[in-house]
Amino acid sequence: MAARSLMDRLAELATLSDEPGGLTRLFLSPAHAAAAAMVQGFMREAGLDASVDAIGNVVGRTRHAPADAPVLLLGSHIDTVRSAGWYDGNFGVLAAIEAVRGVGPLPYNVEIIAFGDEEGVRFPATLAGSRAVAGRFDPATLALRDEAGTSLAEALRDFGCDPDGISAVARRPDRVCAYVELHIEQGPVLEARDLPLGIVTAINGANRLSITVTGAAGHAGTVPMALRHDALTAAAEMILAIEELALRQPDLVATVGRLAVLPGAPNSIPGSVTFSVDIRAPEDAVRTAALSGISARLESIAAGRAVALSINRTHDAAATPCAPWLQAQFAEAVGQLGISPFHLPSGAGHDAMAVASLCPVGMLFVRCKGGISHTPEESITAEDAALAVAALTSFLQNFKPPS
Amino acid sequence: MAARSLMDRLAELATLSDEPGGLTRLFLSPAHAAAAAMVQGFMREAGLDASVDAIGNVVGRTRHAPADAPVLLLGSHIDTVRSAGWYDGNFGVLAAIEAVRGVGPLPYNVEIIAFGDEEGVRFPATLAGSRAVAGRFDPATLALRDEAGTSLAEALRDFGCDPDGISAVARRPDRVCAYVELHIEQGPVLEARDLPLGIVTAINGANRLSITVTGAAGHAGTVPMALRHDALTAAAEMILAIEELALRQPDLVATVGRLAVLPGAPNSIPGSVTFSVDIRAPEDAVRTAALSGISARLESIAAGRAVALSINRTHDAAATPCAPWLQAQFAEAVGQLGISPFHLPSGAGHDAMAVASLCPVGMLFVRCKGGISHTPEESITAEDAALAVAALTSFLQNFKPPS
Repeated sequence: MAARSLMDRLAELATLSDEPGGLTRLFLSPAHAAAAAMVQGFMREAGLDASVDAIGNVVGRTRHAPADAPVLLLGSHIDTVRSAGWYDGNFGVLAAIEAVRGVGPLPYNVEIIAFGDEEGVRFPATLAGSRAVAGRFDPATLALRDEAGTSLAEALRDFGCDPDGISAVARRPDRVCAYVELHIEQGPVLEARDLPLGIVTAINGANRLSITVTGAAGHAGTVPMALRHDALTAAAEMILAIEELALRQPDLVATVGRLAVLPGAPNSIPGSVTFSVDIRAPEDAVRTAALSGISARLESIAAGRAVALSINRTHDAAATPCAPWLQAQFAEAVGQLGISPFHLPSGAGHDAMAVASLCPVGMLFVRCKGGISHTPEESITAEDAALAVAALTSFLQNFKPPS
Repeated sequence: MAARSLMDRLAELATLSDEPGGLTRLFLSPAHAAAAAMVQGFMREAGLDASVDAIGNVVGRTRHAPADAPVLLLGSHIDTVRSAGWYDGNFGVLAAIEAVRGVGPLPYNVEIIAFGDEEGVRFPATLAGSRAVAGRFDPATLALRDEAGTSLAEALRDFGCDPDGISAVARRPDRVCAYVELHIEQGPVLEARDLPLGIVTAINGANRLSITVTGAAGHAGTVPMALRHDALTAAAEMILAIEELALRQPDLVATVGRLAVLPGAPNSIPGSVTFSVDIRAPEDAVRTAALSGISARLESIAAGRAVALSINRTHDAAATPCAPWLQAQFAEAVGQLGISPFHLPSGAGHDAMAVASLCPVGMLFVRCKGGISHTPEESITAEDAALAVAALTSFLQNFKPPS
């Protein structure tokens, strides 16, 4: 009953789009304003005070406990990518409202936050809302402009927000005991294990590399195989070495997603190849070791083929571990539903990464069809959604900060 | 002395370009007209009758033997790629003039032909001049247009040629005993063997394939390695298999020169990869076997990784063998210079491919620096050029059609 209603609300929220024929809801856009209004309505219906803060977050507060009681933050985001699915972010916000609606008075206060800038599509930055909550918002971000030339400061004012109030959005670390986020998995692991829910161990740390292999271009007909220094066959050997290394290490993923060949003609031996490597792992030590291992293998392949190699590290982000005590309380809640508690890392980024500098964070994943996300085909079942709400409800009923 | 003069003439001819700052001489362009005039001048200086035929070939004829004596054709081309080197084609034409100038009366007639359309840059066709000589010119080609919208027929008329006369350009097979072409190697084999000259065994036959590998795209962070169907790692395994197969077979070359990845983002697992394969060999049976071997290996790799594979054959050209008796007479001529006769296939295409339908063909390669061609860095030495002229002179003095 509650889950059916949740699915209906998710469908209703998904009608609020900046573009017809699909769901596109960018930070501080008209669709975002409409969604913020609708979410405030849902929050008030559930008995929460609701408002929009200075960075465009929608915040709903319970008044169960005294004003100085500890605060548990729940949340996710209501901005989307272009041509998005209905559940990425939106599910976590509406599921939290649903759980708080059903749970009855609690001995602590709850704040549900619908962040507005998780996808980072409109401005060349991301996590503005969750950074502000964590007290880590960089005021320089206000000058960033979208493609139409509108600055973040201007867009905030158009949205009805006061950029001068952003620093006051920061929560006091001594008042907030944890942040908890429900989210669709956006990967195929739970489906492959036939499990509706999964407890997140960490949001993976990530590196991104740009690799350039320089060999010798030449005529595809006139240079015998033995005299070649083909940059693409060298890159192919490197790509397989990266795959092999990642396959050997549980929870590590490594991906070559972009590759460009020069000169790139059918009758030319490739003289140069540039490709990206994306490496992620829930443990920074594992990722760092993989990075060294990959670099060493690539150097060795380049030496063996007498081609030049350049490795440029373009991105380096530490992992965000989920608090073990929050994972334990999620495991308890999931187990009470008769579901085997299963732990997995998050390969994608989330607002929890930013909030982790304020307080311990925890995440619960719900299975999504085919592991597909960021497309209109994104899908979850009403049954899984109900189980997620039930698990969060049980978690809230039994929630205890570590003593 | 003669060679020095040849290098000077090559430099003089290289000044005739359609674009400043480099050598670009397209079929029937103003630079081609200027080059045709200069080459006729060189031919007349060498005692030949010279004229331009209906397809834009410059033809120089000796009058040593009676009009019904056998004719030996010599030649190469004077059109170039964009931003070309000075020697590709032009060397063969001027070296032939040089040899005929020095050789004295012969018991047969010689025709030197400077073809105008070997590179196929201007119109979407190639070898118009040599096809016309062989009686294989396709009149439908006359309607093809260049990028500016000018048809081949219009360009011929602007050049002073009469398209209606093209069929009369065809030589009578019973009058022509052979076609012989000198050309720079355009590959690194002679340099690697420290040899100035090489006798061509065949112009390689060639296939071109377009391969598409279709796996499953996905988020680079959320899909564990074991659940992936990465189109690029599959393609990498295929590229290495193609290289390995080609390395095992002497004189076979196989090249993956173009490769495109979709979606092609650093954080996306590649869902689809398309790449070209260029396969060449002097023996058609070897090439056909390689084609089957490559297809079988690719099918097996695709099956092992559960990705879809499509193999599309986009080009199929038989090899052009050089006549063994012409190779033997070249070997004799080269040996007389104290150079060890070395035989090698031609990986690049030449006018001899078209002329081969008229008469037996033979080719002699001269070493070029670094195997580099089709760039301004293309280079040969005056010493090697002189040896090539000396070899051709000796060949002409001793030339005997097979009895």
